Amino acid sequence: MGFGLISRKNKQLVLIQMDVLKLGNKLTSGEKLSAIFHKVLELIDTHRPDEFAIEAPFYGKNVQSMLKLGRAQGVAIAAAVYRQLPIFEYSPRKVKQSITGRGAASKEQVAAMLFRLLQVSNPPDYLDATDAVAVAMCHMFQGAPKQEEDRYSGWEAFISRNPGRLG
Amino acid sequence: MGFGLISRKNKQLVLIQMDVLKLGNKLTSGEKLSAIFHKVLELIDTHRPDEFAIEAPFYGKNVQSMLKLGRAQGVAIAAAVYRQLPIFEYSPRKVKQSITGRGAASKEQVAAMLFRLLQVSNPPDYLDATDAVAVAMCHMFQGAPKQEEDRYSGWEAFISRNPGRLG
Repeated sequence: MGFGLISRKNKQLVLIQMDVLKLGNKLTSGEKLSAIFHKVLELIDTHRPDEFAIEAPFYGKNVQSMLKLGRAQGVAIAAAVYRQLPIFEYSPRKVKQSITGRGAASKEQVAAMLFRLLQVSNPPDYLDATDAVAVAMCHMFQGAPKQEEDRYSGWEAFISRNPGRLG
Repeated sequence: MGFGLISRKNKQLVLIQMDVLKLGNKLTSGEKLSAIFHKVLELIDTHRPDEFAIEAPFYGKNVQSMLKLGRAQGVAIAAAVYRQLPIFEYSPRKVKQSITGRGAASKEQVAAMLFRLLQVSNPPDYLDATDAVAVAMCHMFQGAPKQEEDRYSGWEAFISRNPGRLG
């Protein structure tokens, strides 16, 4: 699972960090999920991002791999929920479209454009890392959310907006 | 998403609670995941269970529904991870097998057997609730985990068992 953190200062995009979580093969699935949860929590607490964006793929190799991916995304989302970050999701097509102008761009094309935009001279070893940065960039390109439904800003905010909504 | 809490006192199984999370259709996916995370955290803090078990289906309607299920399970697992509960997972077949003796039993057969075992006179409206109790019962029937790999007892325990394992 890749992750990327970017910031924008005076219209200048800055890459803060991009990497992948290396989870040893010997970890049980529970241990992997725990590692992801704690790593995302640590990243949030270290860098204090304002928002959290994640990819929502519409297809996968098989249902079993999608369940695993969903669980991994779920624990990462839970860390963001716990720190009350607004959560956004984008399809892979939307991400590619917003970075390269083409929804069908290859991973390599997306990475090349990202490195140019962010002035990265040392590309990372793993494309999962650039994929994650691409999602963050895509979210930044969207600007502020236009509709309330697009965003989610924490359980407390939801409760106050929807009193008595949950039984 | 259903949930069930059971306890065993002097070999007597007791149903503490079983229900489903009713998530309004108007909730965004982020709001639903947040609701699940906070509800599971609340259940754990209220009832202080010793262990957490979840179903691991091997097939689903389609990859998209499996991603959603995975995310929902992921945030529930994150709540358990956060409270340092050991996490266990069982296939639906294993659950049915352990309750009824038949891996291919119907949901209704599983529910009927559960109600007998737990002396439930008022069955719940939703089979998702009994499904969840079935997973808990299945876990209880397994007894204590035999192998270290079967269980997972929190990040701190993992770290102490595997110094230097995560880069």
